[in-house]
Amino acid sequence: MGGGTAGTIALRPIGFVRRGADEQTKVIAVDPKFAEGLAKIEEQEYLWGLYWMHELPEEMRARLQAHPRGDRNRAKQGVFSLHSPFRPNPIGMTRVRLVRREGTRLIVEGLDAREGSPVLDIKSG
Amino acid sequence: MGGGTAGTIALRPIGFVRRGADEQTKVIAVDPKFAEGLAKIEEQEYLWGLYWMHELPEEMRARLQAHPRGDRNRAKQGVFSLHSPFRPNPIGMTRVRLVRREGTRLIVEGLDAREGSPVLDIKSG
Repeated sequence: MGGGTAGTIALRPIGFVRRGADEQTKVIAVDPKFAEGLAKIEEQEYLWGLYWMHELPEEMRARLQAHPRGDRNRAKQGVFSLHSPFRPNPIGMTRVRLVRREGTRLIVEGLDAREGSPVLDIKSG
Repeated sequence: MGGGTAGTIALRPIGFVRRGADEQTKVIAVDPKFAEGLAKIEEQEYLWGLYWMHELPEEMRARLQAHPRGDRNRAKQGVFSLHSPFRPNPIGMTRVRLVRREGTRLIVEGLDAREGSPVLDIKSG
């Protein structure tokens, strides 16, 4: 499964990150066709959000080392022991607090994704 | 970025899950072309492993509800508040303990991925 050519794996966004009503919150706007997957999600206080760092230029996927926390005073190390956005598959992973659900829109705190980022998955946190 | 047609996102495996020397361990065999990304990873005790549940039949991606922990005595709920493998993008996410590094092979404990699973990303845990 997973399709694609030459060993690639094809993912389809389940929704997108949207602006929140204030600076503390963001919205995970889930595609209504996946609404059934949200049943009882309001019982969770924390969720993991997996998203695609869509604004990262393609060439950054080839950078395999980065400064920890972007701090140039610290020596570079491999990206697989960091949460740097530079990595072959720029998947962001953030634990967020679910403030409330409004239909297929999840109002969350702590999501450090840019607006417009495709959301790949949501799991209990 | 991310390419693909019709809004799909194309990922390339960075390695594969392999059998460990004993029942407690598995190996994340990273493709040697990404070796630079492993620099200093041996300083981490815990890592997040993201992998693709490649053995899941394609039709399972359409199942949006499941029993919590697969327990049929519990009512079904939406997959986005579970860690069920049934989900539109079957990405597994496990926190593992790094036992040791052998070149581009990471010997880890606690990885519940099947052997042969494509590994999508590794992050500090």
